[in-house]
Amino acid sequence: MSSFFGQYLRLGLFGQSHGPAVGVTVDGLPAGMEIDMAALGKALARRAPGQSGLSTARREADEVEFLSGVMEGRTTGQPICAVIRSGDTRSADYGAGVDAPRPSHADYTGHIRYFGFEDWRGGGSFSGRLTAPLVACGALCAQFLQSRGIRIYAHIAQLGGFADEDIDSVEDISRLAALREKRLPTLSEAAGSAMENAILAAKAAGDSVGGVIACRMDGAPAGLGAPFFDSVESVLSHLLFSIPGVKGVSFGAGFDLAAMRGSEANDACVLEEGRIRTATNHAGGVNGGVSNGMPIIVRCAFRPTPSIAQPQRTVSLREMKETELRIQGRHDPCILPRAVPVVEAMCAIGLTELWKERLACLKA
Amino acid sequence: MSSFFGQYLRLGLFGQSHGPAVGVTVDGLPAGMEIDMAALGKALARRAPGQSGLSTARREADEVEFLSGVMEGRTTGQPICAVIRSGDTRSADYGAGVDAPRPSHADYTGHIRYFGFEDWRGGGSFSGRLTAPLVACGALCAQFLQSRGIRIYAHIAQLGGFADEDIDSVEDISRLAALREKRLPTLSEAAGSAMENAILAAKAAGDSVGGVIACRMDGAPAGLGAPFFDSVESVLSHLLFSIPGVKGVSFGAGFDLAAMRGSEANDACVLEEGRIRTATNHAGGVNGGVSNGMPIIVRCAFRPTPSIAQPQRTVSLREMKETELRIQGRHDPCILPRAVPVVEAMCAIGLTELWKERLACLKA
Amino acid sequence: MSSFFGQYLRLGLFGQSHGPAVGVTVDGLPAGMEIDMAALGKALARRAPGQSGLSTARREADEVEFLSGVMEGRTTGQPICAVIRSGDTRSADYGAGVDAPRPSHADYTGHIRYFGFEDWRGGGSFSGRLTAPLVACGALCAQFLQSRGIRIYAHIAQLGGFADEDIDSVEDISRLAALREKRLPTLSEAAGSAMENAILAAKAAGDSVGGVIACRMDGAPAGLGAPFFDSVESVLSHLLFSIPGVKGVSFGAGFDLAAMRGSEANDACVLEEGRIRTATNHAGGVNGGVSNGMPIIVRCAFRPTPSIAQPQRTVSLREMKETELRIQGRHDPCILPRAVPVVEAMCAIGLTELWKERLACLKA
Amino acid sequence: MSSFFGQYLRLGLFGQSHGPAVGVTVDGLPAGMEIDMAALGKALARRAPGQSGLSTARREADEVEFLSGVMEGRTTGQPICAVIRSGDTRSADYGAGVDAPRPSHADYTGHIRYFGFEDWRGGGSFSGRLTAPLVACGALCAQFLQSRGIRIYAHIAQLGGFADEDIDSVEDISRLAALREKRLPTLSEAAGSAMENAILAAKAAGDSVGGVIACRMDGAPAGLGAPFFDSVESVLSHLLFSIPGVKGVSFGAGFDLAAMRGSEANDACVLEEGRIRTATNHAGGVNGGVSNGMPIIVRCAFRPTPSIAQPQRTVSLREMKETELRIQGRHDPCILPRAVPVVEAMCAIGLTELWKERLACLKA
Repeated sequence: MSSFFGQYLRLGLFGQSHGPAVGVTVDGLPAGMEIDMAALGKALARRAPGQSGLSTARREADEVEFLSGVMEGRTTGQPICAVIRSGDTRSADYGAGVDAPRPSHADYTGHIRYFGFEDWRGGGSFSGRLTAPLVACGALCAQFLQSRGIRIYAHIAQLGGFADEDIDSVEDISRLAALREKRLPTLSEAAGSAMENAILAAKAAGDSVGGVIACRMDGAPAGLGAPFFDSVESVLSHLLFSIPGVKGVSFGAGFDLAAMRGSEANDACVLEEGRIRTATNHAGGVNGGVSNGMPIIVRCAFRPTPSIAQPQRTVSLREMKETELRIQGRHDPCILPRAVPVVEAMCAIGLTELWKERLACLKA
Repeated sequence: MSSFFGQYLRLGLFGQSHGPAVGVTVDGLPAGMEIDMAALGKALARRAPGQSGLSTARREADEVEFLSGVMEGRTTGQPICAVIRSGDTRSADYGAGVDAPRPSHADYTGHIRYFGFEDWRGGGSFSGRLTAPLVACGALCAQFLQSRGIRIYAHIAQLGGFADEDIDSVEDISRLAALREKRLPTLSEAAGSAMENAILAAKAAGDSVGGVIACRMDGAPAGLGAPFFDSVESVLSHLLFSIPGVKGVSFGAGFDLAAMRGSEANDACVLEEGRIRTATNHAGGVNGGVSNGMPIIVRCAFRPTPSIAQPQRTVSLREMKETELRIQGRHDPCILPRAVPVVEAMCAIGLTELWKERLACLKA
Repeated sequence: MSSFFGQYLRLGLFGQSHGPAVGVTVDGLPAGMEIDMAALGKALARRAPGQSGLSTARREADEVEFLSGVMEGRTTGQPICAVIRSGDTRSADYGAGVDAPRPSHADYTGHIRYFGFEDWRGGGSFSGRLTAPLVACGALCAQFLQSRGIRIYAHIAQLGGFADEDIDSVEDISRLAALREKRLPTLSEAAGSAMENAILAAKAAGDSVGGVIACRMDGAPAGLGAPFFDSVESVLSHLLFSIPGVKGVSFGAGFDLAAMRGSEANDACVLEEGRIRTATNHAGGVNGGVSNGMPIIVRCAFRPTPSIAQPQRTVSLREMKETELRIQGRHDPCILPRAVPVVEAMCAIGLTELWKERLACLKA
Repeated sequence: MSSFFGQYLRLGLFGQSHGPAVGVTVDGLPAGMEIDMAALGKALARRAPGQSGLSTARREADEVEFLSGVMEGRTTGQPICAVIRSGDTRSADYGAGVDAPRPSHADYTGHIRYFGFEDWRGGGSFSGRLTAPLVACGALCAQFLQSRGIRIYAHIAQLGGFADEDIDSVEDISRLAALREKRLPTLSEAAGSAMENAILAAKAAGDSVGGVIACRMDGAPAGLGAPFFDSVESVLSHLLFSIPGVKGVSFGAGFDLAAMRGSEANDACVLEEGRIRTATNHAGGVNGGVSNGMPIIVRCAFRPTPSIAQPQRTVSLREMKETELRIQGRHDPCILPRAVPVVEAMCAIGLTELWKERLACLKA
C-alpha cells in the first residue's frame, strides 16, 4: 500500500500537488511533548521553494495546521493530523489529463497505476510537494529523538562533480549545526561555491544536475534495528527511496566497501572512556542490521531533476505516436538544497520507528 | 519487528545458525501451484556452501521439508511452512556466550539487542544460514512470477577491482539464463576468471573481498509499486538490505546519476512495436516509485566477509579491556558467489508482494 | 496502535470531539469511482444529532471536504483524506482537564492512557463524533460493494425490552431499503413506537437505554475471510467493538447457539436454482471464518449511554477522594438511532477489506 | 491475510489437521524468559483429546519442539518457532477431495476459498488441531503476563441449559486456580455434573451441545488498549472469533447491557485502599476500549460441534445434486472442555499484544 508507513510510529500521507491540501496523520508520538514550532517552521522553510535563484520561483506558504493531536502546544498522545493548505497552485481547470508524459517523470507510470483517473496536475501524489508534511512530521520526530540524545545532520556531499568534506570525519559539532543555516548546506565553503556555480550553469543551459546527500545520526544507542527484515538499513532505505529522485542509498563506506578487502573494511572494536566504539566507521554505525552506537551514516544519490527546458522525445498517449515535448514554466535546476531537510526528516521518522520498536522489547 | 515481512505476501522467518532448523512461513501464494522442486533444489544448491575452493568447506544438506501448505506437490493456498534441518552444525556445548565480539560481525550488536540471552553460536539469527529458507521462498515466488512473464537474473557485476559486462545491455536472453549454471555467475568469462583469482588471492592472504551483485528483472508490467511509501525501490531495498553484508543498493544508473545532467539522465519515451518504452534505462525501470515496463535493474554492494584469518583488535566484554582476536575455522573468503541466488530470491519476494498489491487494486 | 486499520483497505482516523476537525485517510479504494455524494450525505445525516427529540440537541453540519484523492467527483486512486470541520463546538477555554471522571465513560481510562495530556473535552478521541468520518468512509465502501452486488442493511433489533422482527427472515427487500428512511429504523412499526416511547421515558427520567442493532449483508460471495486469524467474524468484530458503547457482537444465532444441539444448529446444504445454499442460516453466513454465500448476519449489543442526568458517585482525581457528579447539558438518552448508520459503515469497511484480500488471492 | 496476527507480538500460524506438523512462529517475547515447560505441557494436555468419555478418542501426543528462539530453556529474543508433529493422523491416501460438504463445517467454504486445491483432510487448516500451537504460544504469553501480575482464568459458564456461577463475583482466588485441575472446569460442582450429563446425553443421541466459556483476566493495569481501532475488545474479539465454533463474544454484562438503563449499567467510581476502582463491573474492565484496572471479563458463545452422527442433508459438489451424509468416526460431542485453555491462550496472546503496545507508548 502506498501512503501508510510504520508499525510503531504510524504515518498516513495524503495529498496531490495541486489539490486543496497535503498532510499526514501520525500516531505513536508520546503524549505531553511540547512542540517546538520554531524548529518545525525552520525545517519547512528550508524545504520551501523560492528561497534563491537556485530553486523554482513558485512560493508556498507551508503553514502547518494541526487538525488533531495537539492541544495548547503539546501533543496529546492522540493521533496528529497535520495539514498544509495549498495556495495559488490550484488549477481552476483540470484539463484533459496526461497526454505526452514528461520523460523520467511519473506521468506515464501514474497514468498506468491509476488507470487514467489520477490527479496528474503538477505530478499529483508523486510530487515533491508531498515532502512538506513529511518534513513537518520529521521535525516532530527529530524533537522526540533530540530529547533522547540523538541529533541528525545532513549535507550535500557531492554535486556537479564537486565533493564536500566527509561528514563522518567532522569532530566539531558546531560545524554540523551550522549546516542548517546555509542556503547550500556544505561543510566546505569552497565546495559550496563550486556546487552553486554548477547549479547556475545547468540552469543557464536549460538543464539540471543531481548529486549526493549524506546524513549523519549522532547519539543513537546500540541495539536499534534487527536482522531479517527490519534492519536499520532496511527501515531507513525504505523511507529514503520514497523521496522523489533518490536512486541509490548506501551506509558507511557503501559501494566503496565492494572494492575493499576485509582487513581494510573491518572496524576494530576499541574502548573509549570505558565505552565500546569502533576505531573506524566503515559500517556506518550498523552491524548485522543493528546499530552499534557509532554515528549512523547514510548517503542518498539523487538523479538530476527530470524537468529541463530542453526539448525531449516522448510519446502522445492519445495518438500513440512519438512527439517532442518542451516543458514550460520554472523548475528547480537542482533539487538537492531543498532535499536536505527531507532526508533529515526521513531519517528522523525511521529512527523514531526503530526507537519505539526497541522500547517494546524492553523488559518493563 | 524483525522476522516478519510483507502485507500481501507474508513471511515469517525463524532459526539460528546452530539451532535445530531454519525455516520460513509464507502466506499469500495462490492455491494450486505445482511446485517445481528441481528449480527449488537448484536455487538452494547455488546458495549452499562447500561447492568449490571459493567458499567454506562446511557442508549443509539444505533439504526443504514442507510442514504445511503443500499437498501432492501443489500449494493448497494455506500457509506454507518450509523448514531446513541443520545437520552436524549443532553445538553440543553452548559455551559461555560472546566475550570478544568479532569486528564488523553482529556479535556485539546482537548481544546488546538480546540483552545477552541471544543464541550467539555461528552468528545466531544474524547468520547467512537464514538465507537458505529465503532462497526456498524466493524460488516459489520466482515460479509464481515466471508464469506471469517475469524472469529474474543476477550476476556478479564487480569483484576485487574487476567489472563484468553491464547486465542491462545484454540482448541475448540465453546469456542471462546461462548465469545460473556458473560457479561464478558472470557474463564475461575473462571477468569471471579474474574475479576467481582475486578470491583465491584473498583466501591465500587470510583475507576476504567484497563486490557488487546486479539483478535484472525482465517482464514486469508497468504499474507495480507506488509513490510514498511503497515504491518498487523501497520494497526491494527493504529486503535487499536484510541480506547480511549488503551496504548499498541502487537502481538503474544509481550513484552515477548523481554526476549526470538531466539531459543526459532522462530516458526518452519511444514506441517499440506499438508499446511504450524508453530509449535508455538510466532509471532502472522505475519512475516515481512505479515500474514503467522496462527491465528493473538493481545493484547491491556487499562488504567483504568480516571473518578473516588475520589477527584483529577487539574488546573483551567480560573484562572490558582491549584484546586481540584470531578467528578460527574455515570461512568464505568471498560471499558473492553464494549471495547471487539470495539477491534473486529477495527480488522475487519483493516483486510478488508488489504484484499482489497491484492485484488488489484492480477493478474486479 | 489505535487509529489505523486494515491491510488491504487502509484507514487512518484522527480528531477529537472539540478539536478543529475530525477526519479519515483511506487508501485502497479503486481509481475512477464516481462518488455518490447524495448517498454519502444521507448516511451522515442519519448519524447526525439533533434530528428529533430522541437525540441530543447539539447540531453539527457534518459536511465532508475531500482534501485529497478525489477530482471532479471521482476517486483518483490516490489516498483520500476526508475531513469534517467542527463548528461551534470548539471550547475557547481548555479548562483544567479531567478531575471527576464520568462513570463508564473513557475519562479515567483516557487520562491514564495519555498520561494526563489528552484532549479530554467532550470525550476527546473517544467521542462518538469520530464516527462521522467513519460513516463517510463507510458510504464510499458501501458504494464500492454495491457495484459488486453487496447491500448492507441495519435495524434496531432490540431496545428497552422490545424486539423488532428478525431481519434475517425478511424476504421483501424493499422493506430493508425502507429502513434508511426511518427516524427509528425498525421493521415493525409497532416495535418502533414502543421503542420510541421507551427512549422518551428514559429521557424523562434523566436516564438512558441500550439495545441491539442487527445488520444484514446480502450478496457477499462465498470465499471471503479466512481461518486463523482473519475470519469474517474477526474482521467485523474488530471494527464493531471500536464503536463507542458496543459490548457484545454475535453472528447468526449467536449466543442462542450455545443452548442448541448440533442437530438443531446445523444448517443443511441445499440446492436452490442450481446454487448451493443452506436451508437455515444459524451460522449467519459464515463457516470456519469464511463466507458461505448466505446473508451475513451480525448483532451488536450497545450499552445505555453513560451520560445520564442523575447524580452519580465518582472520585476526584486531584483530591483522591470520592465525590458526587451531576453531568450537565443535553445528551442522547439512547445512541441507537444514530448508531445504525455507524454499524452499517463498519460492516462496509470490513467487507471491503475482505473483498480486497480475496482479490489479491485470485490467480490473475 | 489469514495466518498472521499482531503488530507488537507477531504470530504466524501454520499447519493442517492431517499434515506433518502444526506450528506457530512468534516474535516479540522478551529475551531471557525461562520457559515453564510444565505449565506449557499442562495447557496442552488440557486441550488434548482423549482425556475422558467427554471427548474424541483420538490421541495426540502434542509435544512441542522449539525449532528456534529457545536455548537452554530460555527465550533468546529471536523469533520462536514451535512445532507439534502429527502422529498417526497422517492419511496415506489423499482421496478425491471434498464432495459432500459436512453441514456447518468449513468444507464448502474452504473449497471455494482455496479453489479446490485445499488440504481438506480432517478440516485442513480450519481444524481445531491448529489451536494446539496457539495454546503453546498462549502458555508463553501467560507466563510473560504472570510475571507482570496478570492472571487468566476461564470456565464453562453455560452448557446444555445449565449455568455455572458468575466468575466475576468469585473472591477466593484459589477457586479460580482450581479450575485448571478439573476435567470440566466449572466453579460449581453441581453445575459441572449437570453439564457432564448433558454432554453424555447428547453423545448417546448422536448429537452435540454448545455452550459459553467465560474468561477473567485479573491484574491488568489501567491504560491497555485504545479507542478506534484497537480497543481491548477489538483485539480480544479478533482472536476469539478465530477459534473454531465461536459465534458470539461479549464483555462484562454484554448483551444484558442492552436491556439495562444507564443508571443501572453505569459502574460508579470508588476508592479502595487508595486505588480507583468501580463499585460494579458491568463494563467488564474496559471503558472506551481501554482497560480500567478492574478484572477484564469476556464471554464466548460456542456453537455445538457440527460433527454429529445423525444423517444430514447436503449437496454433492461433483454431481451438483442433493444427498444425505452420515459422518463416520468418533467426534467430540462437546468442544467446550477442550476449548477452555484455547480461550485462555487467545486472551493471553491479546493481552501481551496490548501490553507491548503500551510499552512502546511509554516515555522512556
